[in-house]
Amino acid sequence: MDAGEAATSPASVESLVVVHNVAKRHNVGTMARSATAFGVSEIVLVGRRDFNAFGSHGSTSHLRFRHFHSLSQARHYLKALSHKPSSQSREERNCDVCGVEITDGALSIADHPFRKSTAFLLGNEGTGLSAKECEICDFFVYIPQYGCGTASLNVTVAASIVLHHFGVWAGFPERSREGNKFTVAEKPVKQIRRNYCASSVESIVEERKSRKQSASIDIFEENGTNDSKLTNLLETLFDD
Amino acid sequence: MDAGEAATSPASVESLVVVHNVAKRHNVGTMARSATAFGVSEIVLVGRRDFNAFGSHGSTSHLRFRHFHSLSQARHYLKALSHKPSSQSREERNCDVCGVEITDGALSIADHPFRKSTAFLLGNEGTGLSAKECEICDFFVYIPQYGCGTASLNVTVAASIVLHHFGVWAGFPERSREGNKFTVAEKPVKQIRRNYCASSVESIVEERKSRKQSASIDIFEENGTNDSKLTNLLETLFDD
Repeated sequence: MDAGEAATSPASVESLVVVHNVAKRHNVGTMARSATAFGVSEIVLVGRRDFNAFGSHGSTSHLRFRHFHSLSQARHYLKALSHKPSSQSREERNCDVCGVEITDGALSIADHPFRKSTAFLLGNEGTGLSAKECEICDFFVYIPQYGCGTASLNVTVAASIVLHHFGVWAGFPERSREGNKFTVAEKPVKQIRRNYCASSVESIVEERKSRKQSASIDIFEENGTNDSKLTNLLETLFDD
Repeated sequence: MDAGEAATSPASVESLVVVHNVAKRHNVGTMARSATAFGVSEIVLVGRRDFNAFGSHGSTSHLRFRHFHSLSQARHYLKALSHKPSSQSREERNCDVCGVEITDGALSIADHPFRKSTAFLLGNEGTGLSAKECEICDFFVYIPQYGCGTASLNVTVAASIVLHHFGVWAGFPERSREGNKFTVAEKPVKQIRRNYCASSVESIVEERKSRKQSASIDIFEENGTNDSKLTNLLETLFDD
């Protein structure tokens, strides 16, 4: 963190989740359910695009997904202040990238060590965050454990605890309730494909674009109708 | 809660998990992993005894399991001050029973509304806590949600967040680490059956005992070698 940078008011912050090559694809589905419960703005998939929406209970249709081929592309997007001349303010995330990992310098999640919008990077279930993944992080949080029976938590459980704490710190307004349940919004209209972040034809086009325009970080065009079409598509691919 | 009752020092408290007829049996396995991570003393199964240890990553072998046929039996055990003349101090739990449910009077988990040892009652995944389940609870906690995409959390995620907060409140000492993992203790020696709380023959014997001795709440004998034999058996039934 830059000591000189002023902390943003918690009222205006947002949280994102970055998933890099998660091995068990159903974990993305269960993670999506927690992500939407805790007000996450976007799930960023890095590497693999395909996942299993099982466990999401339909919540993936309420989430924005985004895909990048590499960690450095994802970091650039998350830190972006002006990666495109035409970029709009919503593209200027200026997030902290926070690795969820038990490293030596990691801070306890219970202390809410946040200062602005934060993207949480979750690693592979078995091995945790790799050295490359750690490189794109500004700081690390960990979840204290007390018992002797497990070396670490399930990745969705870990993500959920972290996102819950961020929401408490940020003072996100609580969702209204109906009886003993929180109110679920109407789902967007269903479209075609599920469990894959962008359809295959678009994926190929984007892959080529990405190779050609090495300066362009975001693999999806973010302006005009093309953007909203893609966003709608993504939002409805994952309906459970 | 009784206003006149003095709060126990957090240093001496413990947490338990009560699972009543959980529908998806693998949820007990994943819950066990979180339970041992957050220093839970015991998992109390009410109703169904069988479960799937998938997801526990071997952590079930480090946990104590106990089974009761009815909620009232479980409550009696959890509140017990002297349910047997021969009872030892570890049997005198005097727990609060805390339902994890979004009821009108439920307290936010982020406020740590605890005062002593607490047994957390988790309900069925679909319907939450039933009226009968609510009856045995002293108070309720809920986990605030902020987004529009899901009515509730996965039961293991909810349990994990609650148990994590209890551990923070109680000031449980953190487990030591090896590299980026918490240290896992040696497993007890493997024994026979998995995924079932008490083997079938013992189950029948206990069932009969339980019917005969209506005054006796605990279906396992808790004194002498019989107890430790059973405990060892239970602890190793669930190895992953």
